[in-house]
Amino acid sequence: MAIRNFNEETLTAEVLRRIEDTSNPRLKQVMTSLIKHLHSFVREVRPNPDEWMTGIRFLTDTGHWSDDKRQEFILMSDTLGVSMLVDFLNYQAQAGMTESTVQGPFHRRDAPEYPLGANVAKDPPDGEPCVVRGTIRNADGKPVAGAALDIWETGEHGYDTQKGDGNAMDLRGIFRTDAEGKFWFRCVKPVAYSVPCDGPVGKMLMATGRHPMRPAHLHFMITAPGHDCLVTHIFVKGDKYLDSDAVFGVKESLVVDFKKNAAGEWEASYDFVLKPSKQARKAA
Amino acid sequence: MAIRNFNEETLTAEVLRRIEDTSNPRLKQVMTSLIKHLHSFVREVRPNPDEWMTGIRFLTDTGHWSDDKRQEFILMSDTLGVSMLVDFLNYQAQAGMTESTVQGPFHRRDAPEYPLGANVAKDPPDGEPCVVRGTIRNADGKPVAGAALDIWETGEHGYDTQKGDGNAMDLRGIFRTDAEGKFWFRCVKPVAYSVPCDGPVGKMLMATGRHPMRPAHLHFMITAPGHDCLVTHIFVKGDKYLDSDAVFGVKESLVVDFKKNAAGEWEASYDFVLKPSKQARKAA
Repeated sequence: MAIRNFNEETLTAEVLRRIEDTSNPRLKQVMTSLIKHLHSFVREVRPNPDEWMTGIRFLTDTGHWSDDKRQEFILMSDTLGVSMLVDFLNYQAQAGMTESTVQGPFHRRDAPEYPLGANVAKDPPDGEPCVVRGTIRNADGKPVAGAALDIWETGEHGYDTQKGDGNAMDLRGIFRTDAEGKFWFRCVKPVAYSVPCDGPVGKMLMATGRHPMRPAHLHFMITAPGHDCLVTHIFVKGDKYLDSDAVFGVKESLVVDFKKNAAGEWEASYDFVLKPSKQARKAA
Repeated sequence: MAIRNFNEETLTAEVLRRIEDTSNPRLKQVMTSLIKHLHSFVREVRPNPDEWMTGIRFLTDTGHWSDDKRQEFILMSDTLGVSMLVDFLNYQAQAGMTESTVQGPFHRRDAPEYPLGANVAKDPPDGEPCVVRGTIRNADGKPVAGAALDIWETGEHGYDTQKGDGNAMDLRGIFRTDAEGKFWFRCVKPVAYSVPCDGPVGKMLMATGRHPMRPAHLHFMITAPGHDCLVTHIFVKGDKYLDSDAVFGVKESLVVDFKKNAAGEWEASYDFVLKPSKQARKAA
């Protein structure tokens, strides 16, 4: 019976035939594409058994390095450009709206909410004092009051989850814009840093001749009723890694001038323009 | 600068540009193909952020389920047909030689060596008594003396590594052919069984409408100087899963009639023909 004698040409069709009864049409579409590309990749590179086992071990190690504080598969997705690709395919800012970029693995759902002007840096601060301010507007140029800005950043010694037992809360917080759509808060000046490179992804970067650095940036996740959630960064102008970000996250429109103010602190201004949600666009 | 403004079309080229300095040419080839296929897959299915996160979690769980006794990534490779594809691309038996099939995740390097005729089933045996015998020959039809047969199988309650603390040694062993290339040993009659389906791969099989069963089989890994290592099974004729093996391992030439002998035990005969190694073929 032919069904017992697959070869490298007929095997892919048989694997696809086996998933024909998948009841969820979206899952069927994803699995079909996955199987086709996975088999094409294997046929293209023709791994020997040792190479195949190296791949199995790499994936296994990547899983073992991942826990609730460290997510090595997200890091792999980021460093292979997959996360930015998913971001491009999903957010698609229109002209005049703020562009999105990669979320990264360091967001926490439990960040504290602060009043405008508060300092997210615990004392002593892990970096140089900095003030960030701006206005959030909608696509019509009107200020958005009560928008939530969830912000997070690395200090000079890493993100809070990378320090000590990883449970302290530092350099992150949630603010809400005032009636004029304005926000301002205190933090530390963002610094360039290395993505975690003591695990499998670090080995991959090293083996492929890449550095693990990200240019200095401050993360934002901005939510407001009637608008799509905007996940983005602002980057520090002049950073030497702007053209070689290890996770491909830089967009020119997100690069901001950080300057010393009269009080000797760093200061940066950035105005965000939110994209209306699909429901809001339909209603308009 | 264009380099700071990738889009879904230009991002792939930039990721490939970043690995241009990879010093190992084979790694560069594999990573290039991987990045192209991975990005094509993502562009084709356009995952939303929740779907992307589902993928990240699936891979992470698959890593967490894997340890020195259980290898969920090998199981994923097996059930997606990748392991058989790698096997086809590598072994490629010529006419008249025994075909290979998938190794699976249950081989152990530390199996005990036994004299010919020994029983690999610990007392009480986890199945019905069975004798397996045959001859190992080279491509010229000459018997191969001293070939090592590493054999392993499931009992009615699973492989030894799946029982108790997983450390007992049962239903596996190494035998060596005699001067006439003959081997014979005692075991239990192979039974059909489910691949482990309490983990992520089991969920994938269920969600895609597939059963997790493998037809009854006995594993062989046969090594002899001057020959390629042959990893294969013999399957039990008449098994109801021969046409729907969860790991696509069945080849008609490996299906064997198991019959009751005069002593009331199961008995099967199979003669193997080994493939000369590349060095041996060159020397010939």
